[in-house]
Amino acid sequence: MKLGVNLCFAIKRWIDGPQLAEIVTDKLGLEYVQYTWDLTDPWWPEAPRDRMAVAYAEAFRNAGLTVESTFGGLASYTYNHFLAPTDELRRLGQEHLRRAIDMTAAMQVPAAGMPLGSYSAADAVNPARREEIYKIAKGLLVELTGHAKKRGLSTLLIEPVPVGTEFPASAQDARRLMRDLDGQTEIPVRLLVDWGHALFEPLFGSDANMDLWMAQCGDYIHSFHIQQTDGQLDRHWSFTQKGVVTRERLEEHWHKYKLMQQTYFMEIIYPFESTDEFVLHDIVEATRMLKRVQPAQIAGDAQ
Amino acid sequence: MKLGVNLCFAIKRWIDGPQLAEIVTDKLGLEYVQYTWDLTDPWWPEAPRDRMAVAYAEAFRNAGLTVESTFGGLASYTYNHFLAPTDELRRLGQEHLRRAIDMTAAMQVPAAGMPLGSYSAADAVNPARREEIYKIAKGLLVELTGHAKKRGLSTLLIEPVPVGTEFPASAQDARRLMRDLDGQTEIPVRLLVDWGHALFEPLFGSDANMDLWMAQCGDYIHSFHIQQTDGQLDRHWSFTQKGVVTRERLEEHWHKYKLMQQTYFMEIIYPFESTDEFVLHDIVEATRMLKRVQPAQIAGDAQ
Repeated sequence: MKLGVNLCFAIKRWIDGPQLAEIVTDKLGLEYVQYTWDLTDPWWPEAPRDRMAVAYAEAFRNAGLTVESTFGGLASYTYNHFLAPTDELRRLGQEHLRRAIDMTAAMQVPAAGMPLGSYSAADAVNPARREEIYKIAKGLLVELTGHAKKRGLSTLLIEPVPVGTEFPASAQDARRLMRDLDGQTEIPVRLLVDWGHALFEPLFGSDANMDLWMAQCGDYIHSFHIQQTDGQLDRHWSFTQKGVVTRERLEEHWHKYKLMQQTYFMEIIYPFESTDEFVLHDIVEATRMLKRVQPAQIAGDAQ
Repeated sequence: MKLGVNLCFAIKRWIDGPQLAEIVTDKLGLEYVQYTWDLTDPWWPEAPRDRMAVAYAEAFRNAGLTVESTFGGLASYTYNHFLAPTDELRRLGQEHLRRAIDMTAAMQVPAAGMPLGSYSAADAVNPARREEIYKIAKGLLVELTGHAKKRGLSTLLIEPVPVGTEFPASAQDARRLMRDLDGQTEIPVRLLVDWGHALFEPLFGSDANMDLWMAQCGDYIHSFHIQQTDGQLDRHWSFTQKGVVTRERLEEHWHKYKLMQQTYFMEIIYPFESTDEFVLHDIVEATRMLKRVQPAQIAGDAQ
């Protein structure tokens, strides 16, 4: 399994590039990294923002790490973005992603992504409004693919979320978005699928299984988030906790689909009040557990 | 008990001013509101940001609500701000609060606040660095009180957090900050104390009690956040859940200290994946439970 780590575990704690790179290489023993916008806010003024983001990127490269993509985190997910009820808010959503694309380009990272956005409570229960806003959102996203191409990015990513008032939520939603964008965009828009989102039972019921996601939109999946969860809330627990994302389940999936390109980024969100000592110890332990995911057949093929 | 509500329950859901005002007045039956920056990001471009923030404020006023203060939420708390390791990051923290002050002034709201910031993991274990950065942070905050005064604000608020790598965390920390700022600022800087933070046992042990907080810094407390918690993590649960912030405890506190001016703002953070129906039903129920907090003596005095 091509294992990587989203840097959300480090926010507010290890915010010096070389030091963070050392944690990922020496303590976690990983090569693939997804940078989180929670380290440098896309809304910050460009000059200091890009100076700091580039310093992170250079530190990671110097340590031999590959930053595959940059991604929205907690701060980004707080707002409605592309599916907001007003044109003014949707334009701010577009501007948010545009700024993140600029930051990503400055870092010389090829891909950037986020969840698309959230309908308001009023719009969410109005199918006609949902459809109207979805079409506008698609247009705004298509516009941005032109900007992303000019800035040198090769892919934009959209992450489905386990929230009925957002889009895409289900595998069917995600497939629709991919089909609707096919041939419309200057660079490909692909999916980043979070296992904890896909396995959220209160919303998806028996559709909360990765085989359905692979069948519906496997061809469009660029990468994964993995997190431990009980399937009842979007937990983002560590793999040191018990849950439904077991080693056996990950092995079976990897064995079945043999996804050699798609990185599985751990996205573990620790409470801010957990101590730095605990978080560092725990992420090391979680990584060690996930490294044991090695289906016999593929391990055999590689020999 | 002067009960109010922080609008964080509404983010991404009820983001239309008149509709949100109606929920607070008609469904919750409350008058006092704390606006959260998670509705309009201080980093957004000023013109649309202030247009939207002012529209919220006007809708609230038209409905007879009083917005006592504006406050940092999830997005703001994601970054290190005033206690960051570099001058560049600390200046961004100052700029963040400056922009929030400008937004608050446009809304004609008299107070704004947030937690002060977070040390990096490396600085947090270095007492000399902590002290050095604390002094710089104080200077940046004092500078801002001049700006806040010019813009017409009467108070800035700092919220202690239950995190050993931030400042202020303990009641003693909070008292020190207040004493250090006394006489140095153009407008008063006061504390907003979150009960769930103050009662966090893993960090504070037997000091996790409100009497200690009142003894140490009661004179500086401008307002409270209240949330349900088990005292083991910073839960921000609803009062429909069981925990250590009981009705009896709130009644005893109010009876003992008779705080008639300090508003107790419910700050309940719902998972994004909770449905709008659940959240609305639950916040109504939580508010109903808290309205029963009426110490006999003060109720008697008012008759």
